[in-house]
Amino acid sequence: MPAERDPLADLLAAGGEPLRAALDAGEQRLREVAAQAGPPLDAPASETIEAGGKRLRPLLVALSALAAGRIDGEHVVPAAVAVELVHSATLVHDDIIDRAPLRRGRATVVAAYGRREALALGDLLFARAFSELAAAGDLEALAVLASASRALARGELLQREDAFDAGVARERYTLRCELKTAALFEAACRLGALPAGPPVADELAAFARRIGVAFQILDDVLDVEGPEERTGKTPGTDLLDGTVTLPFLLARERDEQLAGIDLRTLRSGEPLEEICERIAATGALHLARADALGLVRDAKEGLPDTLDPRGVELLELVADAVVERYS
Amino acid sequence: MPAERDPLADLLAAGGEPLRAALDAGEQRLREVAAQAGPPLDAPASETIEAGGKRLRPLLVALSALAAGRIDGEHVVPAAVAVELVHSATLVHDDIIDRAPLRRGRATVVAAYGRREALALGDLLFARAFSELAAAGDLEALAVLASASRALARGELLQREDAFDAGVARERYTLRCELKTAALFEAACRLGALPAGPPVADELAAFARRIGVAFQILDDVLDVEGPEERTGKTPGTDLLDGTVTLPFLLARERDEQLAGIDLRTLRSGEPLEEICERIAATGALHLARADALGLVRDAKEGLPDTLDPRGVELLELVADAVVERYS
Repeated sequence: MPAERDPLADLLAAGGEPLRAALDAGEQRLREVAAQAGPPLDAPASETIEAGGKRLRPLLVALSALAAGRIDGEHVVPAAVAVELVHSATLVHDDIIDRAPLRRGRATVVAAYGRREALALGDLLFARAFSELAAAGDLEALAVLASASRALARGELLQREDAFDAGVARERYTLRCELKTAALFEAACRLGALPAGPPVADELAAFARRIGVAFQILDDVLDVEGPEERTGKTPGTDLLDGTVTLPFLLARERDEQLAGIDLRTLRSGEPLEEICERIAATGALHLARADALGLVRDAKEGLPDTLDPRGVELLELVADAVVERYS
Repeated sequence: MPAERDPLADLLAAGGEPLRAALDAGEQRLREVAAQAGPPLDAPASETIEAGGKRLRPLLVALSALAAGRIDGEHVVPAAVAVELVHSATLVHDDIIDRAPLRRGRATVVAAYGRREALALGDLLFARAFSELAAAGDLEALAVLASASRALARGELLQREDAFDAGVARERYTLRCELKTAALFEAACRLGALPAGPPVADELAAFARRIGVAFQILDDVLDVEGPEERTGKTPGTDLLDGTVTLPFLLARERDEQLAGIDLRTLRSGEPLEEICERIAATGALHLARADALGLVRDAKEGLPDTLDPRGVELLELVADAVVERYS
């Protein structure tokens, strides 16, 4: 199976030398930090960092800095490293709870090393995120990162509180997206733009919040839509976990039988496949995707003209890529 | 059963008004921070903070500040709050791994609320610790706390790496004590003394490292010695978990039968009780306690004359209390 073409991959080339230098330096620093974890955590730390992913959050830091005219700032690399470390820490911790065997095609830390190791590694990556910013001497940045970390923890729990509640309010779903996903996108853009001052940082944070929610909605669409070969997850995994997402909420309004389902009785296999197909048949996936597209449009339109146009262009490409995944 | 008299309880009265004010303000701030966790984490956060314990680490921050002539500093309360938050975070996380039903006579967060909740609460308390210091504007303090947090994570894992290795080297045991216990004691004293400059902070950190290792040795003695009514744990719990501690290492050198035990085959109940009695019969508990007393003596002797004598006196009382627990 050929690898999915990454719509973000071309951005690097287009951003110019300072952008490339910042992203390369961030990547190198991430690997250093992992290697410095010390035995016995250095191996799982390095594997976690090398497993990679798109580095979307470091990219947002750098592009936000570019847009704010601060790509040459010394704040960029520590901020890029810090947001990715927090992101990695939450993934490592999430996999403990979800007992996930695989992530990004590799064995998770919890599966390969154990629960204690995964817990400690997550804690260590968290601590390293804060020390990167402390070493950079940026108190305001530290406050931003701490606030985002708290939002992630709360978001994870709201999801739990709402589990199996098929009639959860749409606002509550959005709040959950904001906390568990958009908060770190927002922190990334804010951190990149911080030296340019509050108005610019606020504008870029607002952009990031919208594309963060859109990103989560798309994730939730893909969870229903699959296919498994692309998403790496069995379609309907969220529903099976009791996580009620926008596609299901929209589908329930359109299909009485879906509205009558008790999620606690749901089992994997054929009935789950059938439910995913029913959700798709209501048009809910198109509606949810349209919502995400609307958020991306709003995000792009909200970017002020005063920003560096090259940075804006690249941020817009990222915003589009967020909703164009696998579509 | 009457409550154990806390040998630290009288310290508050003896320390004068600024000490009391700092400790009270720290206590109040801890409760505020817990309440601000936001639903659904505010309840377990408040219960965790209120369950309390001795607040030994905030006390070390304040006494170190007193000894360094900085008890009136604005750094004291944030540092005291931050070290206690990190300590609380690690306890909440440890209880997930140990599947512990009770701590300090109350249901643990993992038992009362679930694993996901305990994981998120620990992460949130970590993040809050760093934001307290960030809000206080002290970058050096942030670096100290981050470094201690990393040490805690590594210490937890060294213990795991060494699990069931009955012949683990004494140096390795000490390193584990330094990482999993003494590092946060050290951070507490260093944070209290930081504004007085490196030499003073280093001296107080050295004091803290020694009493931290002594504290852990005493914990390990109490794990063998019990009685359960006082320690809240079944004697021999460490051995059952495969955690080889100083009493067992010393006992193995003196009793061939103990040296021949395969810890993996150990079961709770009578055989465990018997092993604890055999360890005690070798005199290993006295030897380990003597080691701890020696560390405390070295710690006290290492405190320079240039420190505030009232602070020194109280630190010495804390050092003594560390090894006089339940003895």
